[in-house]
Amino acid sequence: MKIRHTHSIIAGALSCALAVTAAVAQSADPLPSWNDGKSKQSILTFVSTVTREGSPQFVPPAERIATFDNDGTLWAEQPLYFQLLFGIDRIKELAPEHPEWKEVEPFKSVLAGDLKTAFAGGTKSLVEIVGAGNTNITPDEFDQIVKKWAATARHPKTGRLYTEMAYQPMLEVLEYLRANGFKTYITSGGGADFMRAFAERVYGIPPEQVIGSVGEVKFEMRDGKPVLIRQAALDFFDDNVFKPVAIQRNIGRRPIAAFGNSDGDLQMLQWSCAGAGTRFCLFVRHTDAAREWAYDISPLGRLEKGLEEAKAHGWTVVDMKNDWKVIYPFEKK
Amino acid sequence: MKIRHTHSIIAGALSCALAVTAAVAQSADPLPSWNDGKSKQSILTFVSTVTREGSPQFVPPAERIATFDNDGTLWAEQPLYFQLLFGIDRIKELAPEHPEWKEVEPFKSVLAGDLKTAFAGGTKSLVEIVGAGNTNITPDEFDQIVKKWAATARHPKTGRLYTEMAYQPMLEVLEYLRANGFKTYITSGGGADFMRAFAERVYGIPPEQVIGSVGEVKFEMRDGKPVLIRQAALDFFDDNVFKPVAIQRNIGRRPIAAFGNSDGDLQMLQWSCAGAGTRFCLFVRHTDAAREWAYDISPLGRLEKGLEEAKAHGWTVVDMKNDWKVIYPFEKK
Repeated sequence: MKIRHTHSIIAGALSCALAVTAAVAQSADPLPSWNDGKSKQSILTFVSTVTREGSPQFVPPAERIATFDNDGTLWAEQPLYFQLLFGIDRIKELAPEHPEWKEVEPFKSVLAGDLKTAFAGGTKSLVEIVGAGNTNITPDEFDQIVKKWAATARHPKTGRLYTEMAYQPMLEVLEYLRANGFKTYITSGGGADFMRAFAERVYGIPPEQVIGSVGEVKFEMRDGKPVLIRQAALDFFDDNVFKPVAIQRNIGRRPIAAFGNSDGDLQMLQWSCAGAGTRFCLFVRHTDAAREWAYDISPLGRLEKGLEEAKAHGWTVVDMKNDWKVIYPFEKK
Repeated sequence: MKIRHTHSIIAGALSCALAVTAAVAQSADPLPSWNDGKSKQSILTFVSTVTREGSPQFVPPAERIATFDNDGTLWAEQPLYFQLLFGIDRIKELAPEHPEWKEVEPFKSVLAGDLKTAFAGGTKSLVEIVGAGNTNITPDEFDQIVKKWAATARHPKTGRLYTEMAYQPMLEVLEYLRANGFKTYITSGGGADFMRAFAERVYGIPPEQVIGSVGEVKFEMRDGKPVLIRQAALDFFDDNVFKPVAIQRNIGRRPIAAFGNSDGDLQMLQWSCAGAGTRFCLFVRHTDAAREWAYDISPLGRLEKGLEEAKAHGWTVVDMKNDWKVIYPFEKK
């Protein structure tokens, strides 16, 4: 008993020493992959404003909640949402076990490489593609499937692992916020359990801070063992007006900072930045055709109303081409 | 800039010093309101087992998730769930503004003091009672209403504030787990936003670690301002088979410890304790007619199947009368 407590005191002191070291390291540029300019400065100013003790704009650590969209905000989303590419890979992998897929949409067109037809069914088709082979299993089994895919599947353009295509400058923002007492959350239209399989490793965001779309899950006894079983139906689609709703449900407080890249994130930004006190809202704008992609409007979504709102409210709009020294971690020297 | 960093280093070192002090204080009996015996020992043994570094049963802090039912597990639930008593108080308070309630159930019977008739409509009636006067407002407004009620309303039997009727021995368990690196969550059939109004103050559990039933919430623009508005409909009832589902949705990991007091908590305990490695499940059994209440079966729920399962799996069953030195914090000398 005594030994255990001594241990935890030493462990505590050690983790404290590390925390202090981290704070000292922080005095170097916390956003080295950002070019100096308005965007970078807006982030630094916001953090310094809300963390300055004694200032009227000071926000206690418990209320330092920051929410991030994932696709197009923390990692790339072209040529398709990576979860859709995962779904397509999975359909191809499982096709031999499902001869019936050759006759049924959207699987038939996915297997024929005709994505336009495969997606013609709208959300219903997307849910089927993403769900194929991932239902009637437990969340743990699904987690293993995604982890295996993330460790091996390659992006069609860069040839990189998908998880290598997180944005280095945004990883620095996540880290910088956490070093300043923020709790960082993902709030994405992507599947919560899909993102959880890599969010901790790639973003430093633990499963309980990942909010996303969720499929129906049922509690069952199988062979006398209690299990959760993933169902085919979509339960909650975490996009547009539903993002603030999901934040209220899972977090129960309004974020003081919100980050997105499309009009699907707009309501989250509106709601976050309409709260009292100092707030921060940021859109990542895809302006770099050479290093990433350049688009405001794509089949995946649009950033249009968001740009107007950003202008009206003085939110930060990141110009990837000019604001970011590198896009991906593997470009760092 | 430099000053800010120095500040946060000092603040960091200070909070570290406090943490270490807390760890030292911990070497005293961490559960002073528990009589020595099997129940208390089972908690101490579990915590020491999963936190012993180098041991094969060691669980990393990130996975130390503990979930607690609220009503009857963390605070009392007689003669009615406190949230129902809140709903009844609220109906009486608002009755002058709602003359129509005199003619409509369940309000009519609530106002006449005939709760049996008021509750005859089952879940639908309960949702209406709990929701009366609390819809078409924002979560922030609701939070203020609950806080005001919690600061003034008195329990019909003890004459105490409801928040004074948390169980002292369970407060010690929460504290003890957190001091050992656990993240403590509420997973209750009660309303998430209702509990969030006092959970941090009373239990030390922040809003984002409160999982409960949720009503529908809608995002709207009102007078040009983005707001969330509480609706009348129930969206999710966090009880029985739905507790593990809500845990998967909000936390995304299986708890290694779960605490409840009725068969409505059984699936949460089953699922938590069926995971690999060392697990801990506990039922609080209401056996103290003098200091609290004595019941396994009441109109509010039953502990029946849970007792069988506890016996079969060796879970801890707390005998309030014999295991607890005091029930409520105000009994402490």
